[in-house]
Amino acid sequence: MNNLKINITSESSLKLDCGANLEECEVAYQTYGTLNKEKNNAILICHALTGDQYCTGTHPLTKKPGWWHLIVGPGKVIDTNSFFVICSNVIGGCQGSTGPSSINPNTKENYNLSFPVITISDMVNAQVRLIDYLGIKKLFSVIGGSMGGMQALQWGASFPNRTNSIIPIATSYRHSAQNIAFHEIGRQAIIADPQWLKGLYNLSKNNPKRGLSVARMIAHITYLSESALQRKFGRNLQFRKSFSYGFDVDFQIESYLKHQGITFVERFDANSYLYITKAMDYFDLSNTKGGLTKLFQNNKIKFCFFTFSSDWLFPTSETKIIIKSLNNSGANVSFVEIKTDKGHDAFLLKEPEFHKILKGFLDGLNKTVNI
Amino acid sequence: MNNLKINITSESSLKLDCGANLEECEVAYQTYGTLNKEKNNAILICHALTGDQYCTGTHPLTKKPGWWHLIVGPGKVIDTNSFFVICSNVIGGCQGSTGPSSINPNTKENYNLSFPVITISDMVNAQVRLIDYLGIKKLFSVIGGSMGGMQALQWGASFPNRTNSIIPIATSYRHSAQNIAFHEIGRQAIIADPQWLKGLYNLSKNNPKRGLSVARMIAHITYLSESALQRKFGRNLQFRKSFSYGFDVDFQIESYLKHQGITFVERFDANSYLYITKAMDYFDLSNTKGGLTKLFQNNKIKFCFFTFSSDWLFPTSETKIIIKSLNNSGANVSFVEIKTDKGHDAFLLKEPEFHKILKGFLDGLNKTVNI
Repeated sequence: MNNLKINITSESSLKLDCGANLEECEVAYQTYGTLNKEKNNAILICHALTGDQYCTGTHPLTKKPGWWHLIVGPGKVIDTNSFFVICSNVIGGCQGSTGPSSINPNTKENYNLSFPVITISDMVNAQVRLIDYLGIKKLFSVIGGSMGGMQALQWGASFPNRTNSIIPIATSYRHSAQNIAFHEIGRQAIIADPQWLKGLYNLSKNNPKRGLSVARMIAHITYLSESALQRKFGRNLQFRKSFSYGFDVDFQIESYLKHQGITFVERFDANSYLYITKAMDYFDLSNTKGGLTKLFQNNKIKFCFFTFSSDWLFPTSETKIIIKSLNNSGANVSFVEIKTDKGHDAFLLKEPEFHKILKGFLDGLNKTVNI
Repeated sequence: MNNLKINITSESSLKLDCGANLEECEVAYQTYGTLNKEKNNAILICHALTGDQYCTGTHPLTKKPGWWHLIVGPGKVIDTNSFFVICSNVIGGCQGSTGPSSINPNTKENYNLSFPVITISDMVNAQVRLIDYLGIKKLFSVIGGSMGGMQALQWGASFPNRTNSIIPIATSYRHSAQNIAFHEIGRQAIIADPQWLKGLYNLSKNNPKRGLSVARMIAHITYLSESALQRKFGRNLQFRKSFSYGFDVDFQIESYLKHQGITFVERFDANSYLYITKAMDYFDLSNTKGGLTKLFQNNKIKFCFFTFSSDWLFPTSETKIIIKSLNNSGANVSFVEIKTDKGHDAFLLKEPEFHKILKGFLDGLNKTVNI
């Protein structure tokens, strides 16, 4: 699998929400399936906070299956025998798209914290240039879970004529106070790691692994439901019959979280974590004049929202708010809450009802688009 | 206010659950009100993870009101005109009771991590010696919220004849997988701080303030409900009209959490945080032969449980499990769920219905005990 990459600033620089211009910006991406002659079978899949462009197949770094391999592939829910799937690494990321670990062309040194703070809208503006480059006028769908769903919604707000449908999954139109709080603590854990070196850790041989690992562990709890944790781990001890009466691992849940932390730091950049969490925290589509209703007025897009009943990071109640606004705008909106105890991560997991309905929506849409 | 202290090992050492013996162990405590002649008006108040013996009055270190000043005092819910209130610092703590920062009499150096790992039961065994020392045969009540409620329940299990009533508030009979997970991450944040120095930070001039601060911030989110965070802070910006597009504080919630972290490290010891969280994680009253039902069989204690509807750290569903078992044991059990959006911290806050019912229960009990 080649890591495809394009320079999206060959014609003009990328103006960011913060006011800065990225004069050189690359977007790394993968495609799956074949773009048809009419170029109307393309689906853009947007990844979540720690995801990347390798949504299916084998990840070249981790050698594990891509993050949405259950959904994307030949004969799967998003069938690459029919659809041309595009998945790009967000700008600010660390899998090839320009981000804080990239070289600043002006200084020939890594950006680190001199990289401008980016937003979800900036990420989407970069994606549009990729879609332009691929010669696609209108996408069949923009689909994403969690932060990927934020990007999908941003497509609807910024480029309502560039996609037939939007499928936001386990997401919200804004980041809540509690979610900002969890992110801020993750960032503080990274910043508190002395090996972070004010973001200049690439100059030393060390990475702020401990801080990044703690940040990942914090986030990971929010991805699971309390009942899933109880069901999977409960109070089971790890490789022991009685308490250690020490500070090593006693419980399976401790071992699991530590493992999550350790494996994460091998594949993710600490500064990218700061930038991408900040982009999510800044996200609030309702913070515009006229609010959500005005934002989506006269919008022809077909929306299909999915939430998961035990997702406490992006609860169904948040999605219901935007659905109400979309209905007020006269938009075409479907909404399904999947009953599951798997929490936020359910969108990545085996959830037959979710998969069936998602496939049904795509099939139904195809009767209109006719790929 | 004097910091009262007794040596509870003047006659015999304190045997701990881990197998170790504490040969010298002090318990620091405060009392409020006057013990009557019959010595039947004493209420033991047990503090939570980061609480201490200063449950009311002015805290000598922080100069702030004690943690339960809304409840405890002359004419208040727990009326010190009638009751003799005792509140002691748990062993393992850092406000005068023997803990990891104490001097090991054998080495004349601080224990640090050589302090034995303690349990909730060990804390209660130390409290019993204090009650013995005060000449009290039977307490009027043992009351506590959160970890204090665990201690109260442990009193019921270990010393059923030493109290007339037990009032466990916002607590559980065991620590859940999710709660263990949050604690473990807090511990990892402390351990990841290089100034922790494998627990030997007292040898240097530095404290692991950053790690302890992150641990406190993590815990603090769990003390509040999502809706309370949204109501109090929402997405409001802190002292600014637009985003900073940097990594300084943007949102009020970030500023609030940072403040919580910073003030906490001034009053709490990092190693104590490790020990006390571990004690909570180990707590599981159901992990005995015959389970909860057997444990409380033939128990004459009057129980009054309180939960708070938006408490997701110790949800009502957990308390319902022990109530079912207590009912199966034929125990005398009352249970009230207070409707509030204030989350776990509600037990410390102004909750008129909670206060009224708590006072009502104490008044009712007094008709039997007749102080």
